[in-house]
Amino acid sequence: MAQHTEKAKAKLHSLNAALESGALNKVERILNSGLAPADIAHLIESSPPKARKVLWDLVDKELEGEVLQYLSEDLQAHFLSDLSAEELVDITSDLDADDVADILQQLPERVTQEVLDAMDQQDRTRLEQVLGYPEDSAGGLMNTDTVTIRPDITLEVVMRYLRRHPTLPEMTDNLLIVNRNNEFIGILTINKLLVSDPNQTVREVMTTDARVIPATMQDTDVAKLFERHDLVSAPVVDAEGKLIGRITIDDVVDVIRETADHSLMSSVGLDEEEDTFAPALKTSRRRAVWLGINLLTALAASAVIGLFDKTIEQVVALAVLMPIVASMGGIAGSQVLTLVIRGQALGHLSSANFRWLFNREIIVAGINGVLWAAVIAVITLLWFNDPGIAAIIGAAIIINLLVAAVTGAALPLILKARGIDPALAGGVVLTTVTDVIGFLSFLGLATLFYL
Amino acid sequence: MAQHTEKAKAKLHSLNAALESGALNKVERILNSGLAPADIAHLIESSPPKARKVLWDLVDKELEGEVLQYLSEDLQAHFLSDLSAEELVDITSDLDADDVADILQQLPERVTQEVLDAMDQQDRTRLEQVLGYPEDSAGGLMNTDTVTIRPDITLEVVMRYLRRHPTLPEMTDNLLIVNRNNEFIGILTINKLLVSDPNQTVREVMTTDARVIPATMQDTDVAKLFERHDLVSAPVVDAEGKLIGRITIDDVVDVIRETADHSLMSSVGLDEEEDTFAPALKTSRRRAVWLGINLLTALAASAVIGLFDKTIEQVVALAVLMPIVASMGGIAGSQVLTLVIRGQALGHLSSANFRWLFNREIIVAGINGVLWAAVIAVITLLWFNDPGIAAIIGAAIIINLLVAAVTGAALPLILKARGIDPALAGGVVLTTVTDVIGFLSFLGLATLFYL
Repeated sequence: MAQHTEKAKAKLHSLNAALESGALNKVERILNSGLAPADIAHLIESSPPKARKVLWDLVDKELEGEVLQYLSEDLQAHFLSDLSAEELVDITSDLDADDVADILQQLPERVTQEVLDAMDQQDRTRLEQVLGYPEDSAGGLMNTDTVTIRPDITLEVVMRYLRRHPTLPEMTDNLLIVNRNNEFIGILTINKLLVSDPNQTVREVMTTDARVIPATMQDTDVAKLFERHDLVSAPVVDAEGKLIGRITIDDVVDVIRETADHSLMSSVGLDEEEDTFAPALKTSRRRAVWLGINLLTALAASAVIGLFDKTIEQVVALAVLMPIVASMGGIAGSQVLTLVIRGQALGHLSSANFRWLFNREIIVAGINGVLWAAVIAVITLLWFNDPGIAAIIGAAIIINLLVAAVTGAALPLILKARGIDPALAGGVVLTTVTDVIGFLSFLGLATLFYL
Repeated sequence: MAQHTEKAKAKLHSLNAALESGALNKVERILNSGLAPADIAHLIESSPPKARKVLWDLVDKELEGEVLQYLSEDLQAHFLSDLSAEELVDITSDLDADDVADILQQLPERVTQEVLDAMDQQDRTRLEQVLGYPEDSAGGLMNTDTVTIRPDITLEVVMRYLRRHPTLPEMTDNLLIVNRNNEFIGILTINKLLVSDPNQTVREVMTTDARVIPATMQDTDVAKLFERHDLVSAPVVDAEGKLIGRITIDDVVDVIRETADHSLMSSVGLDEEEDTFAPALKTSRRRAVWLGINLLTALAASAVIGLFDKTIEQVVALAVLMPIVASMGGIAGSQVLTLVIRGQALGHLSSANFRWLFNREIIVAGINGVLWAAVIAVITLLWFNDPGIAAIIGAAIIINLLVAAVTGAALPLILKARGIDPALAGGVVLTTVTDVIGFLSFLGLATLFYL
């Protein structure tokens, strides 16, 4: 245990060696040597495509469902395509409804229906409830395996009732209290159950102001609620206040991880589900789109430069220096953009405080604009010995940093209001603006001065 | 509850309105109207500096410690500087040892010692244990509030023992079993305790292969362990196997959030603890450093262009087109870089599979290089009607995309091996390479052709 990560690395290494040498029985032995399903999934995700297929085929039939739920969506869809509806029902029978729903959503509509038809009545009803909500809502995130009790029994009775279960659902940190109509009333924390006098009734010790999650709540809002109130699980209710499931922290952690991954990967036009070891052709296609979009912005910048070709012909130092103006604007703007996008994600920004932030960014851009304009002007003067061009680049730097600040601060709000993801589009739009304004101000001022 | 985020927004809005109009009694009423400490902290973090001070002064004395632990480090340090050692002991008395340790680490050594001296013996011993480990290790992350039991008692006795507690520590999903020497033996899950026959002994139902965390484990590895095995809490042991505390999922969620924030903010040279509403001067200074570093890379690119000023003077179209070559390389490279850094963070990459990834990236760069080289060559031909320059830019694009792939894939490994954070330095180094190679190949080939 002490060297957990080291051990995992060593295992990955010997697995890869065994795979390369074709010693499949050795691979199988390592794979089924008490590795947790999550670890097996990790090994599969850490392997190139050819090895993955081999590994997947060696996984114990009984573990397949468990392993599957830890794989990325791409890989799920890939392995699932080989399975029949019966096999699917079989390998997913031990999973929580929300995890089965996630897996089924990777399949074509027709196959999903087949799988539902092959299930027993109870599992089907549960699953259909989860499938009825969007994947990124509380309803899509919930499990249906709740332990419910009535308010008028004693804790002693609750204890006896629990002992009738072979086991309780994972992460049961509270029991959910409902009335005859299955309407949610409150929770009895396990903590309270354990420290209270067994002769008290549930009603006497229950918590009625627990955090309850409406099924339609956005998953990122669910995550904020869990984070802010240190929850382990929370009940989910429908529009009528009826208890329909509960959300557990492990699924919330996945949401947090995916949201963070989304911000990071979107900034380079990739998907958070992007597979590290996707085949070359598949990944080429995805990345080509982003390169194409970037080409349009680069062409816009070139078109601006093209307007001033006469000036550049005359003063070639402009061509040498112009990338500095564009680059400084891009960097300053992306700092503001990143800060504002993060502020949005954390829920820090509102119309009430945005004005303050906006003003602060103008001041910051002013301070850094003047500072770096001076530095760059001095460098330019020493390099080209031309006070005119030094003054022009200084002015262009100040202009571009101010424009970058305004764009970086306002852009996320504008994009969000139009339903465009700022993490995806923000960087491209910002760079287009700072490139165009950078070249325009620098070459434009130079043209006024020299021609 | 149903409109949780809407409500929070509305509250933030009316708070800001009350603050602006100076209606302090109204602010105080909103603030102490049953808002959770985490919500109050959120309101403070979402406010500009002047309002923050006002809000903080209005927080109930009893809640100050709780609110403090949810604030960012910058803000903690800011508010703490006004408090005496006695006040500090007072407001932190209800917090977990790990949270107190986090707060104390914001203070000067001298003040920390004063606070420790003012504490009672038990609290001090606990706190010193946590403070003895680095902040980013399991030991720095742990709480010391464990519920321990011996293996030879019956579950009935365990139940009676628990009832003697007024409450159990938060997130107690298992009881920790130790021997006479406080050496960790195993866990008794609350789940098992509740469903088992009370006459059984702890030894009969305990789990001995639970995940145990050594105090020296890196916090990000702790997070991986929690994520991969869906843990709520896990025991922490020292080098001798003695139980010294436990880590709970709420602290792990903070680690996950901070690690993700780090990747995002580092890419623009900011800190993950960066305060959205930091004062202008403070934030200007931090950002200036990054702009300065970027200026060096921009100057390197300019120096390369400067080598070819004669060629540009002759063929001004080169100046117009050269940003396209640099920009396409930068975008393609940052895609590879981001994918590899994420792969590192997820633990997907090893020496065994890196070779495959590297080869894949060369193939992807080849495919996209040829594709976009063709597109750009055609555009150039139509624009400048010069087959020579069209061929040159096509060749330069292919060269730069290949270099970008090699750099983006290898850089994170090289930086990491030298102890430099790839998330921080990767982007700058990559852009320097793609700018320099982009200008060098395009202008260099053009010089060979035209001069």
